[in-house]
Amino acid sequence: MHTVFYVSDGTAITAEVFGHAVLSQFPLPFEHVTMPFVGDEAKANSIKERINDSYRQSGKQPIVFHTIVDTKLREIITSSDAKCYDFLNTFVSPIEQQLGVKADPRTHRTHGMDNRKHYDARIDAVNYALENDDGVTTKEYDEADIILVGVSRCGKTPTSLYLALQFGIRVANYPFIDQDMEQMRLPTALKANRHKLFGLTIDPNRLQEIRERRRAGSRYAAPEQCQYELEQVERLFRMEAIPFIDTTFHSVEEISVKILERTGIPRRIF
Amino acid sequence: MHTVFYVSDGTAITAEVFGHAVLSQFPLPFEHVTMPFVGDEAKANSIKERINDSYRQSGKQPIVFHTIVDTKLREIITSSDAKCYDFLNTFVSPIEQQLGVKADPRTHRTHGMDNRKHYDARIDAVNYALENDDGVTTKEYDEADIILVGVSRCGKTPTSLYLALQFGIRVANYPFIDQDMEQMRLPTALKANRHKLFGLTIDPNRLQEIRERRRAGSRYAAPEQCQYELEQVERLFRMEAIPFIDTTFHSVEEISVKILERTGIPRRIF
Repeated sequence: MHTVFYVSDGTAITAEVFGHAVLSQFPLPFEHVTMPFVGDEAKANSIKERINDSYRQSGKQPIVFHTIVDTKLREIITSSDAKCYDFLNTFVSPIEQQLGVKADPRTHRTHGMDNRKHYDARIDAVNYALENDDGVTTKEYDEADIILVGVSRCGKTPTSLYLALQFGIRVANYPFIDQDMEQMRLPTALKANRHKLFGLTIDPNRLQEIRERRRAGSRYAAPEQCQYELEQVERLFRMEAIPFIDTTFHSVEEISVKILERTGIPRRIF
Repeated sequence: MHTVFYVSDGTAITAEVFGHAVLSQFPLPFEHVTMPFVGDEAKANSIKERINDSYRQSGKQPIVFHTIVDTKLREIITSSDAKCYDFLNTFVSPIEQQLGVKADPRTHRTHGMDNRKHYDARIDAVNYALENDDGVTTKEYDEADIILVGVSRCGKTPTSLYLALQFGIRVANYPFIDQDMEQMRLPTALKANRHKLFGLTIDPNRLQEIRERRRAGSRYAAPEQCQYELEQVERLFRMEAIPFIDTTFHSVEEISVKILERTGIPRRIF
């Protein structure tokens, strides 16, 4: 098995996420090793040794994906016996040519704290999502960018948190309960912000499976209850013209991006 | 200003995150446009038109960062008048040569739902973080990978959620309160899991600023209270040999990666 090293003088998150995207195109298993915060020559040299050891021991040439801004440290890593792929500079050079502007490399610009205001906005979005999770309060809906609605356990909370943490968006979420669905009308708190509502739905069997894992044998997890709630909630979405998507076969990332696509709200942080 | 288009037949998250990392090396502003889920030729052609329009209107050649797995759709986008950078294939071809294995391209492998078990584990980690946030319960600490400890508002909750959502790690967090700090000893619930404890601390001025935004003029936000709590908590960390880091100048990503580096726990999802 080939070993893949993700090496960076920052968090190495870019190298990891992007490296995994590239390798996911290959029908092979890999061993993954992440080496973040390579900040000095001693550390760079010890990583170079480890890369070379891995080659000697496995007989397979390691792959190194790196995003190292410091030139000296980069040279140490690329002088190893691995095949090294330079994620940043591969694109920086042609873009310099295209724009006629020299790059001004700095470490920690990607996942660092360069922009404090921006960063505070992100933490505020996380706090907002937590304080407005699961309908615990509806008083702050005026400040929401989006209010996710749907039955219990259809994916509202993870989606709210993802949109907050990764995209800096303020998302409240409200679970429809039996009473809302019997009356087939929106609770008053939601009516005033109906332009912000976005619905999530899910396959009844999948919902049952999720609820069963939480409260085995309960009415809440019964097949007919799941079926009933979902039928009613989808009728309500249609009646009230609330846009909605089915979360069954989608990851949190896919759901989040689809919501932004439909609402036109841009992501605020990267 | 140059317009940058992030185009993908998936979520475009890889293109966005990686494209931002590349462009952050340039001291220039850019206009960003994200085009996810380009699933058919009609959509690809309309995006090509939009890219060409942007060139005509601004007079500046647009930049296109793309991760399009489908060959036909990719050809439509790269036949636009923009300068196109192919994030995946730039690296896939040389890696094919290195490994002597052909890539087997499939859409949605990066941020999709390919691995349901993996995905459930991630949602479980998010639920775990929420249920074990802020010391609300200590009964499930046996199941934690890490237990973050520190004073109120030092960054425990966003870090717990980030580690859960992005890395699939089960993180509880426990806030030290006055009583714990006066007695200068660990609460019983923490003692049994002391090998899982990881401390966060923060600069007193920064803490005061954060608390002031939440409860202006309170004792909780008073400079001397912030100072006292932090002094005590750092003494406790040292006395009990709990590893800890200062969050003041670090992003959630940096804090999370530092914790994994110190504890040796690998990230579980990408």
